[in-house]
Amino acid sequence: MVLKIGVIGTGAIGKDHIHRITNTLNGGEIIAVTDVNPEQAEAVVETENLNAEIFKDGHALIQSPNVDAVVVTSWGPTHEEFVLASIAAGKPVFCEKPLATTAEGCKRIVDAEVESGKQLVTVGFMRRYDQGYRALKKTIKENQIGTPLMLHCAHRNQNAPAFHGDMPITDSFVHEIDILRWLLQDDYVSVQVIQPRRTRFANDGMQDSYMILLETKEGIRIDAEVFVNCQYGYDVQCQVVGDTGIANLPEPASVVVRKDAKLSSDILTDWKPRFIDAYDVEIQEWIDATLKGEMNGPSAWDGYVVSVTVDACLEAKNSEKIIPIDLPECPSFYREAKVEV
Amino acid sequence: MVLKIGVIGTGAIGKDHIHRITNTLNGGEIIAVTDVNPEQAEAVVETENLNAEIFKDGHALIQSPNVDAVVVTSWGPTHEEFVLASIAAGKPVFCEKPLATTAEGCKRIVDAEVESGKQLVTVGFMRRYDQGYRALKKTIKENQIGTPLMLHCAHRNQNAPAFHGDMPITDSFVHEIDILRWLLQDDYVSVQVIQPRRTRFANDGMQDSYMILLETKEGIRIDAEVFVNCQYGYDVQCQVVGDTGIANLPEPASVVVRKDAKLSSDILTDWKPRFIDAYDVEIQEWIDATLKGEMNGPSAWDGYVVSVTVDACLEAKNSEKIIPIDLPECPSFYREAKVEV
Amino acid sequence: MVLKIGVIGTGAIGKDHIHRITNTLNGGEIIAVTDVNPEQAEAVVETENLNAEIFKDGHALIQSPNVDAVVVTSWGPTHEEFVLASIAAGKPVFCEKPLATTAEGCKRIVDAEVESGKQLVTVGFMRRYDQGYRALKKTIKENQIGTPLMLHCAHRNQNAPAFHGDMPITDSFVHEIDILRWLLQDDYVSVQVIQPRRTRFANDGMQDSYMILLETKEGIRIDAEVFVNCQYGYDVQCQVVGDTGIANLPEPASVVVRKDAKLSSDILTDWKPRFIDAYDVEIQEWIDATLKGEMNGPSAWDGYVVSVTVDACLEAKNSEKIIPIDLPECPSFYREAKVEV
Amino acid sequence: MVLKIGVIGTGAIGKDHIHRITNTLNGGEIIAVTDVNPEQAEAVVETENLNAEIFKDGHALIQSPNVDAVVVTSWGPTHEEFVLASIAAGKPVFCEKPLATTAEGCKRIVDAEVESGKQLVTVGFMRRYDQGYRALKKTIKENQIGTPLMLHCAHRNQNAPAFHGDMPITDSFVHEIDILRWLLQDDYVSVQVIQPRRTRFANDGMQDSYMILLETKEGIRIDAEVFVNCQYGYDVQCQVVGDTGIANLPEPASVVVRKDAKLSSDILTDWKPRFIDAYDVEIQEWIDATLKGEMNGPSAWDGYVVSVTVDACLEAKNSEKIIPIDLPECPSFYREAKVEV
Repeated sequence: MVLKIGVIGTGAIGKDHIHRITNTLNGGEIIAVTDVNPEQAEAVVETENLNAEIFKDGHALIQSPNVDAVVVTSWGPTHEEFVLASIAAGKPVFCEKPLATTAEGCKRIVDAEVESGKQLVTVGFMRRYDQGYRALKKTIKENQIGTPLMLHCAHRNQNAPAFHGDMPITDSFVHEIDILRWLLQDDYVSVQVIQPRRTRFANDGMQDSYMILLETKEGIRIDAEVFVNCQYGYDVQCQVVGDTGIANLPEPASVVVRKDAKLSSDILTDWKPRFIDAYDVEIQEWIDATLKGEMNGPSAWDGYVVSVTVDACLEAKNSEKIIPIDLPECPSFYREAKVEV
Repeated sequence: MVLKIGVIGTGAIGKDHIHRITNTLNGGEIIAVTDVNPEQAEAVVETENLNAEIFKDGHALIQSPNVDAVVVTSWGPTHEEFVLASIAAGKPVFCEKPLATTAEGCKRIVDAEVESGKQLVTVGFMRRYDQGYRALKKTIKENQIGTPLMLHCAHRNQNAPAFHGDMPITDSFVHEIDILRWLLQDDYVSVQVIQPRRTRFANDGMQDSYMILLETKEGIRIDAEVFVNCQYGYDVQCQVVGDTGIANLPEPASVVVRKDAKLSSDILTDWKPRFIDAYDVEIQEWIDATLKGEMNGPSAWDGYVVSVTVDACLEAKNSEKIIPIDLPECPSFYREAKVEV
Repeated sequence: MVLKIGVIGTGAIGKDHIHRITNTLNGGEIIAVTDVNPEQAEAVVETENLNAEIFKDGHALIQSPNVDAVVVTSWGPTHEEFVLASIAAGKPVFCEKPLATTAEGCKRIVDAEVESGKQLVTVGFMRRYDQGYRALKKTIKENQIGTPLMLHCAHRNQNAPAFHGDMPITDSFVHEIDILRWLLQDDYVSVQVIQPRRTRFANDGMQDSYMILLETKEGIRIDAEVFVNCQYGYDVQCQVVGDTGIANLPEPASVVVRKDAKLSSDILTDWKPRFIDAYDVEIQEWIDATLKGEMNGPSAWDGYVVSVTVDACLEAKNSEKIIPIDLPECPSFYREAKVEV
Repeated sequence: MVLKIGVIGTGAIGKDHIHRITNTLNGGEIIAVTDVNPEQAEAVVETENLNAEIFKDGHALIQSPNVDAVVVTSWGPTHEEFVLASIAAGKPVFCEKPLATTAEGCKRIVDAEVESGKQLVTVGFMRRYDQGYRALKKTIKENQIGTPLMLHCAHRNQNAPAFHGDMPITDSFVHEIDILRWLLQDDYVSVQVIQPRRTRFANDGMQDSYMILLETKEGIRIDAEVFVNCQYGYDVQCQVVGDTGIANLPEPASVVVRKDAKLSSDILTDWKPRFIDAYDVEIQEWIDATLKGEMNGPSAWDGYVVSVTVDACLEAKNSEKIIPIDLPECPSFYREAKVEV
């Protein structure tokens, strides 16, 4: 049984997903594509040697009776309309982050999905599919370190030449926001954003780094460093302090070299090799679940919570105050479908 | 394009390969199976929901015009005849180790393949597909540690209840024999086998552990420990000493825990999780290469060299002498096809 | 040349210093002791086989013309008077922490010492003598990680049965306060104290753990965890994030064991083995410097700054606000004598 | 109580010992020195500000009634006569390695000491005083890894410009010979020496590296790499494989740095910082034991065994054969005094 997939948006990430579905993963086939730039859609059909129809726009693709499920990898501001259209068509949809560009947009998707009575939306928070984070969550759930009390985290990029404004929060820290609540199965109640001494390598007009403090409903305290021009590499760290022990996210496996009076191992410099396997697992699990009529990845509700939290982070940064994070009750609809590893 | 595969032998490893081709990998389809026990073949067709014909024996399967390529995962003593039959039929064949149960048998396969004028045989030495060994080889080839002079290796199983006689050499050390010559792109010239103090956990009538010393054409010296009841876990170690530095095979990535006055990470206890990814890569690369009409995995020649070396190890063990390893010149046929990472 | 030392207070730490001066270190001799409990003073003279006079009180000991230098290891509330008396007598004095029990008391000592015109007081902040912290400071000073921007620190005790009230701050975090400003050669400007979810192993009526945030004059931001019932061991962590790299305090050297499916090394459970060498170095360096007429350890000014900072921490904890740390200008007297590694 | 020490030979190591006894250690005083070069003896008396008599030769120094104990740090070929003279004078003597330049010379010292009826000789094998080796021995003795079966060792120098001929064996591997039998409390029965591919950095006319195989009475098998121009640093490795687990000699504690896409820690380049603490402990323990009339360091018997083993290594190297190591029964005199940690 093969899942017939239509892809809306054939930019970098769209092409990556098309390639992995076609050449690496099992059980999916790209049978429809579209892009605001039709030449780009045609090019990928040719390059990947797809047997796929090219649609004039996302709505036409969603409506096509040949399309079983939709992948939304178009420009961020268009996500909301294509996800809503997929819900309206009753088709499973995998949407790259952001689910929508505003919390209100996310909420509209949540409301539409709840009203439709069927969970159809999966959001592309790929860290949940990383072996390291899964092993860390397993360690917590097996009670190896007792009850979590604190987390010490860091998200570091070697550099981020295209970043500006609040992108360290909206584009980098956003991953921490999703993964940490998934890890803890807990929600945030407040956030504080501290601006340390600015690195001389910061982008013009942009603060770098941040120290962000989150509090959860259970009283767990998180300090997370976000440093997007750290110079030395791409490095994601997560330490969970429990009341009987402490667990750290694994370092990527690496050859250990003794050379030039140093004992060393390589640190990655790009996020791609760090999370490439996670992307494969993410899409494979989405295909497998969708073929079974299930849905177990990050939900529209998760996308909404992340969006509300990002907004609170920005307010905390601008006000230099501790900002509460208020969320409505999570619909039971989502609680029952909660993802587990 | 899909590679239509026939599988001879649906025991444990046969079923594993059928499962991964059907559910995990891309580009292959199981369309034919056979087993000495027909019920077992029928069972796997049902369990994996295959659209596959069940053949009365391996020869019938090989002859079927529907079968593009053959996977031999039957009982070891039958490997030679099915591989020879595949060569005779001009079909690509992936054969689990051993290629044949004797060096002479391997040599017959090599001769048949050379005579056929086309490389068709791939042998299942899966360590070559392990990310760790590939990273280690890359480190060597990038000249990060200079010219290799020595290797210190260890192959350790937590325990091996089914082992007897010379199986630590024929079934465990055989992997080291293949991977180290691949790593060094060098051949062995002699072997010596030392028997240390016997562990109290050794199987009845069986020596455990061994310290095996290999010398290569380039004068590289290898010491390799083989210890199949080490109690603590499944652990494969490889350290390459170059003339400017030293490189170690990566430890598997693992959560680091601080608990009960210990800083610790888990060691695997089974070989399956250690090499599960390597099996996936192995079969995927075989499918991909076969679809392109290429062949770049471990060759029949590699299978033959390993078989000759195992024989020398056994003679060295029994005689307690240093035994030379004499090999005929490698046919140019194979040298040109040499696998590269 | 031998430094003739008088020790005021022969409790646990006093006896330790007497023992190391007599049996381990070079260049010092205990020639005078006193204790509020005269039997205890007599006992140590006998146990350590000292050729030492027993004085009726600290003031008599300080006045004795035979005493070259004074060690104050009496009950905390008596430190101030004996240090002031030593200054009045013009004698070098090594005082265990706290220098005085209040910031005002510390300030009186600073003022008296400045007025005396000669630096005589050394305070027992032994972490500055730890090889690990010295190596970390060397790494920073050699510019290996660029300009420091952030510090992530942790002070963890396995348990602390004798602790109550604010002792995690006054008795544990006090060490962090001293060592981090020494490490950074910078001063604090504000502090915030966060109380995470309380561990179920916390002492009755006492919060455990704390997350303490310090800001320095240079804008460096420090987050420090203080967790005195962490269950797993005694563990001091310090990570300095610079603008080009990151450096971690060394883990203590330890045998690495592979056993029972774990790769592990021991974590200490007591602070004594962690800092025993630092104590030896501390007292040896004090003896060596004193014999040369120099003074290069933690000064009375350092003791005063720490006291002011502790007070600010307590206010921050109680108020749940960010509290500024205001210090008068450091007298030039101290700046010239600043300790360097 | 002070041990009055006479030092024969004020070259590099002699000066080091004089300095540490005078400035770092406790309980010893240099009151007599001599050297074949009298100016050198005078210079050290002045530099270290010693209150010491300069003797015309070692024999006069040994005979002096002021000298309680003797340190022999003269040229190797003179060790035997000064140790024998110290025994004849009934004085404790600490002799740097080698105890004598031949096995016969060592045997003459053993015989003289046994005949004297009192153990007086300590040989300077300083690795026994290293915290790392002591921790490793403790791990074995606590039965944490079960019964030792194999050892994998390496002795590596960054380079060794002054080395020639068999010095990698006589000057470097000699340390392994002593420490491994101390670690295992076992004796050697045979040795084999393998010469791997020669490093391009080897000294003219000298083999570098060696792989040396030792067998013990208990059947433990040791492989030890000796590589004195390894380029990357000074590195001593020791892994003990027991029948339930494996233990490694600790790596020296070191700052861990993340920089330039590497996670690294420094490797030492010189043996001095690696074993400086061991030297201090060695001489302090010798002073302490001597003052108590005890003797618990490496004995003359140990020096003799090492000398016999070195001779067997050289024969094994030259003959390329497995050479038995035959030793007379150890006199009970020494067995009773066996060193323990």
